Order: sequence, then C-alpha cells, then structure tokens
Amino acid sequence: MRVPYEKMYNEFVRVLLKYGFDKEKAEISAKLYADASRDGVYTHGLNRFPKFIKSIHDGIVDIHAEPVLKESFGAFERYDGCHGPGNLNAYACTKRAIELAKQNTIGCVALANTNHWMRPGNYGLMAVEQNCIGIFWTNTVPNMPPWGGRDARLGNNPITLAIPHGDTPVLVDVAMSMFSYGKLEVYKRSGRPLPVDGGLNKNQQPTRNAAEILETHESYPIGYWKGSGLSLALDLIAAALAGGRTTRQVGELPLETELSQVFICIDLDSLPDKENIAANVEATLRDMETSTPVEEGRPVHFPGTHMAEVRSNNMENGIPVEEAIWQQVLAL
Amino acid sequence: MRVPYEKMYNEFVRVLLKYGFDKEKAEISAKLYADASRDGVYTHGLNRFPKFIKSIHDGIVDIHAEPVLKESFGAFERYDGCHGPGNLNAYACTKRAIELAKQNTIGCVALANTNHWMRPGNYGLMAVEQNCIGIFWTNTVPNMPPWGGRDARLGNNPITLAIPHGDTPVLVDVAMSMFSYGKLEVYKRSGRPLPVDGGLNKNQQPTRNAAEILETHESYPIGYWKGSGLSLALDLIAAALAGGRTTRQVGELPLETELSQVFICIDLDSLPDKENIAANVEATLRDMETSTPVEEGRPVHFPGTHMAEVRSNNMENGIPVEEAIWQQVLAL
Repeated sequence: MRVPYEKMYNEFVRVLLKYGFDKEKAEISAKLYADASRDGVYTHGLNRFPKFIKSIHDGIVDIHAEPVLKESFGAFERYDGCHGPGNLNAYACTKRAIELAKQNTIGCVALANTNHWMRPGNYGLMAVEQNCIGIFWTNTVPNMPPWGGRDARLGNNPITLAIPHGDTPVLVDVAMSMFSYGKLEVYKRSGRPLPVDGGLNKNQQPTRNAAEILETHESYPIGYWKGSGLSLALDLIAAALAGGRTTRQVGELPLETELSQVFICIDLDSLPDKENIAANVEATLRDMETSTPVEEGRPVHFPGTHMAEVRSNNMENGIPVEEAIWQQVLAL
Repeated sequence: MRVPYEKMYNEFVRVLLKYGFDKEKAEISAKLYADASRDGVYTHGLNRFPKFIKSIHDGIVDIHAEPVLKESFGAFERYDGCHGPGNLNAYACTKRAIELAKQNTIGCVALANTNHWMRPGNYGLMAVEQNCIGIFWTNTVPNMPPWGGRDARLGNNPITLAIPHGDTPVLVDVAMSMFSYGKLEVYKRSGRPLPVDGGLNKNQQPTRNAAEILETHESYPIGYWKGSGLSLALDLIAAALAGGRTTRQVGELPLETELSQVFICIDLDSLPDKENIAANVEATLRDMETSTPVEEGRPVHFPGTHMAEVRSNNMENGIPVEEAIWQQVLAL
C-alpha cells in the first residue's frame, strides 16, 4: 500500500495537534517523520511514529520543552534538551550549529538530556541545504557488546556525515553496529538472511539470522574491534561535550532517554575556494562510478544516490507503508 | 632482538642530523618515530624510518619546509604543509589546534600539501597530555575499492580519536580498511591468517590471506558499505577544510604526497564540569571491563590498554626490532 506524502504529513500534523503540540512544532515534527519515510528510511518515519506518541504517554517526552542554552564558548555551545521531543531538539540544534558556522566558519552544538532524534539524515540534509558540511552523532542506550565481551556495554551510536552536492548530497548515515536494530527488525519480519554476518547467536557462532541477533543482542560492531573503539570514543566525546549522560548512564534509566548528541557544521560559503571544493566533490563521485563493478550491471554509487531515487519514486507513486502501522496512525 | 628506547632515539637523531635536519626538528622527529616503536606501532616507527629517508632522497619530502598559515577564521585555520616532513607538519598542526582549543574551547586546523604523518596516535597523545580530546584524520592515496567496486578509488583514511584518562588515555587509531597495509605486510611476513576476512582474492572470494589481498588491493572497508561511505566522507571533508587534494587527486601524482589532514581539539579544562567528565570516562571504562568475556580469561580492554602494557614492557626490556631493519638504520 502507498500513501501520498501530503496525506502522510497531514495525518502526522493532525495527531500531533491532538496530542497538544503547538502548530509550528507539529508541522516541523510531521515534516521530519514524513521526510524520513519519503526518503526510504521507513524505520524512523511512519514506523516509528506510534512509538513516539507512546513515549509522550509514558512521560519520557515533554512536548513543550525546548533546548535551553547552558553555556557558550564562542563557536561552541551547550544545550539542555530538557526531555523535549528528540527530533525537534535535534532540529533546533542543527539550526543553531548552522548559524554558528555562518558566523565562525565552524560551529559546534552539544545537547544533553534529549530523546531519540529519529532519522539523523534529516539534520544532514538541513546542513547541506545551507551549503554546510554536517557531522552529527548521538549516543544510545547500551545495545552492543564491546569487542571481546558478551554483554551490551556500548551504544551503537549512529553518526551522520553530510556533504553538499546539489540535489544529490553525499549522505552517510551509519550506526556503529553492523546492523541497526531497525534493520534487524526489518530482516526478521521479511525472513531474509542478512547480507553479511551481523553478530553472534546463542551458541556464540557468527550468524546472518536477524532474529538470532535480536535474541542475544550480540551485534558485531562495524570492523569488529574498530567499531567497538569508535563507538566508545563517540559516546565519551558526546557526553563530555554535552555535559550529559554517557551510554552507561543512559542504561541506568528505565527507558532510553537523556541522550547526549553533537552537531558540528562547517560553512563552505565562508571558504574562498568553495567552487573548487564543489568541483572536487563532483570529480570524486564520478571517479568512484568508474570502478569496475563486482557484480556486472551494478555500478558503484555514492551514499545518497539511492535516497534520491527512492525519494523521487515515492513522491511520484506514494510512500510504501505497512498497512497495519498506517491504520494504527489513522486511529490515533 | 631488542633495542633500548634511548639508543633508538639517538640513532634516529644522528641520521636526521646527517640528512640536514635542524637540531630541534631532528629531535622532535626522532621522538615521534621512537615513540611509535615504543608503544608497539612498529609499522610506523623504526620499520618506516628507512622509507622516510628514501622519500627525502626522492625529493618528496622537503626537510626545511614548515606549515604556513593560509587562512584564519577564528578557531579554524588552514595551513599549507609545503611538502614538509609529514610527522613534523602534523606535530605543528596538533600544537596549533591545542592552542586554538585553549583559547576557544574547540580548535580546528586543516592542512594541505603534507606527507604521510606516520603514527596518528602520537598526535592523540599530544592532545590528551594537555587535557584535550583529539579528533584527527588524513586522506591517503587511493588504496581501497568503494563498496561494490573492484578498483581502488578510495583511501583508507586513518582516523584517531583520543580522550584524556590519566596515564592510560583512550586511544582509537583505525584505518577505514579492515586492515591497514602495514598490518597486511606484518601478517604476510608471519604467514599467519588474518583473524577475520580482510578483503577479496583474485577469484573475488573473501580471504584471510594477507598476501592475496596485497595482490588484489581489494581490501574490505570496515563494515563493508559503511566504511566505504565513511572513507569517502572523511576524504571529502579533509580536502574541503584544507583546500587541498582529494584522494582522487593524490592518486594523480606519481607517489603518495600532497595529502589533506584535519586536527580538531576540544579543551576539557575550559569546561566547568571537567571533574565530572573525567569520572564518567573512568566509570565507562570500568563498566566495559565487567562485560562477560567471549573467551574465558580474556577480559575486555579499552583501546589504549594494550599500548600502555607494551610501552611499559618495551621501556623496561628494550624495543623489539627486526634485525635487518635495525641494521639498515645503523648503516644510514
């Protein structure tokens, strides 16, 4: 089943207004959810929306809270997210990081006490629309064992890196676990095997069965020990910059909340050679495409290409939805 | 065979002076090479030193060049490395990034036209000695295929993340390829298999045979498509910030030179809660260690623990060297 973008967006606005959001915030939040589904990140668009509404019910998300400036050090600012909606907090901090970058070439905002930011790519797209490079990451609840261990002590700490390139920006959006939990759920529902080993099963054997990994919670970090180290560092840096909770401390709470996030923007318009930079980006992307494909007929694409195709298809033909979830939202 | 640290350091100073280095630069460079071997990063210490001397011969490295400020935007500065020694350029830029961080909490230096920086961890250690977080990366010559491709179009673009923690800082130091070329060479010489698949052999099959990957140059990126995207983004960001060459453009040169690098420091002393940050780092590291080990008797360690052990052993018993390489240096 497919639903037109406008219809999905309007439905989100309706529900958010019903749950007490101000009109402006309802519209921004609805757009962020609808954009995620539009661009093919279904796990953090429509599919996540009912869970978000539940988190308001559960008192995790305070819909009226806004990020409050705690400290300012020139181009670096710290905010308290005050348990506000994660996507609106991230939206506000990205906006602020872009402003700081426009004033100082580079800007960094760190955010404590926030909730799940949903799709990180949304904030990357905000940055590139203003001709900024964006480097954003978040910590999470402990959901991945450190390399050599069996119990979740690290977060999978998604990071997004965005680089302007006209209508097809480079958008890297990855968790430090080989597969995000959203992806594992999708594979589990489909019954298909993962394309590569994603973690260990209960017999401590590598497995491509998503259900087995969801059972053990023993996800592989990307690059094994390397992703384990990267995840640790991203968590410690985010918590330090934000003056907020580490993954370990998030794990002390009954539910995933009070996260720490970082938003770094670099303004390419401030640089004297921005045309040259744009030309170099273009040349690198074209160069990648000339690599002989591993599978004949499947040329190499850069991260972001697939998104542009999915978006165009979804805007033309409607966004594919799991009907049960769509009905759930209609009933809210 | 083992060589005392002082003896190795003095030998490096002797050779560098003979090759025309100023005394101060010879001492800094010698320390950076000796420190790498001392800490167990043999591939970028002694083992690399003869190759460095050759690069002076070959006219790639201009031993008298120093980084020159090109542009300044507050806490962000751009330097031209002027083909100087890669480790001295990186040393100078790290020093400058620390100064900028001390003034502005966060500092960022980007460097163009530089040479191989040798061991990135050295600069991480400089940052943590000043109670700064360090985030540094470099691009490289094309040496890794993008995901889905067979020809090297991406660099493996090593990144180092350093977080202060007393005498045992957290030091993550990873290339975006599953194994660095230095590591592949070590495995090849030892005849041992890699612990996990490192890339494709000439029949396009995954392999743990380092020699086979050195033959095809088809290294796996960490996390497959994820590392491919991260590598691309790190290259484009480094080149944009530095106003320097992308990996593609480095590949147009006859040898690996004119690299682009980024040095970001964040000063924890500037933050009002630095004691709290230090306590959180400590608590996270201790927490990781409580994860049930996959192999009984092999508890989880954080990145940097092994280095501290190796360093202490090497300072006490001398640094293990491959005798042929040591003799090569003595003969220089």
